Amino acid sequence: MRISELSDRSGVTVASIKYYLREGLLPEGVRTSPTQAVYDEAHVRRLATIRALLDAGVGIADARAVLATLDDPPAGPHLLLGAAHAAVIPHATGDLDLAAAQALAERLGWQEGDCDTAVLEGLARALQTLERAGFVVSDDIMDAYLAAVESIAAAEIAGTPTTSPEDAVRYVVLGSVLVEPLLLALRRVAEQVASARRFDADTTLS
Amino acid sequence: MRISELSDRSGVTVASIKYYLREGLLPEGVRTSPTQAVYDEAHVRRLATIRALLDAGVGIADARAVLATLDDPPAGPHLLLGAAHAAVIPHATGDLDLAAAQALAERLGWQEGDCDTAVLEGLARALQTLERAGFVVSDDIMDAYLAAVESIAAAEIAGTPTTSPEDAVRYVVLGSVLVEPLLLALRRVAEQVASARRFDADTTLS
Repeated sequence: MRISELSDRSGVTVASIKYYLREGLLPEGVRTSPTQAVYDEAHVRRLATIRALLDAGVGIADARAVLATLDDPPAGPHLLLGAAHAAVIPHATGDLDLAAAQALAERLGWQEGDCDTAVLEGLARALQTLERAGFVVSDDIMDAYLAAVESIAAAEIAGTPTTSPEDAVRYVVLGSVLVEPLLLALRRVAEQVASARRFDADTTLS
Repeated sequence: MRISELSDRSGVTVASIKYYLREGLLPEGVRTSPTQAVYDEAHVRRLATIRALLDAGVGIADARAVLATLDDPPAGPHLLLGAAHAAVIPHATGDLDLAAAQALAERLGWQEGDCDTAVLEGLARALQTLERAGFVVSDDIMDAYLAAVESIAAAEIAGTPTTSPEDAVRYVVLGSVLVEPLLLALRRVAEQVASARRFDADTTLS
């Protein structure tokens, strides 16, 4: 199909398609003349994935890295998850103290070699952000966080399809990245519900 | 103190301080001459909050809205949470189907009036992103998400300090926003641990 039909099929404007081509997110079509190319169903599917990543707040460079993982996945679901995480976690800048992150990871059952280093660094950076703001997460609340992510991960990993490599790649890479906004949105709703139950809308702070 | 001392005390460069002043994130100091102003401890604390928000990935405009909520909080912790959430949730663009979001919210105990509309719209947008990507969250996994966010929110809201309005404001606004990267980082670690237990690093996909 021509680029105009690709645009109709995918609901993505021609200008955006050209942008994704220039940015290397969408593979080139097959050239039929110096100014024309044809595209196929793989391009339609790829455009849906690109839009989903960008909608989820993933930047262009990170999206490129996630798509590269989809295109050339490391062998095995576990390595794949590491590659997907590494693609979306910002690179560490400056000194990070990994000790506190490791101590939390150990409470999640972490052992040396389980995790891509980028994942532990990402946790260390999140802790550093809280510390810089002088925001202390109480022990009770941290316990609740650890129990919650442990049950989330258990359900997610148990659900990884092993029927085909393509299914597993899609599930692991997109599931990890695209579900993040869902979890944050659900937490906000749950917070508001719990807050409405604890505090009347009229309660004022003394 | 002069801007150079504010920079030393806060660890933020003079150039960045000037940028935050221009962007309206940091209040002006007291002018002592047309080219000089003096700053106080409130500026040091505010700079720590600004850096924490930006480190957590909050954009300049959203950070401005969160800081405005801190400066002029609505009366009552529940309204405050709504204002903090509304500040960081991107505004809805295009049509959103709220029915699926409402159905999930109801499973979290949501009743009409509990939530700021922006929060439900944020959930609807997260669901839309997954749907556009053709990514289906299974019932088992959605159950795990709902149970997890419910226990997180229960612990968080129970921990809201009511000792002083300032404490409550800081806890609710920063806790909701700054903890997001922590939760996502913990989930990644938990996923890697669960994945390492389920799949050998050598397992290849058949």
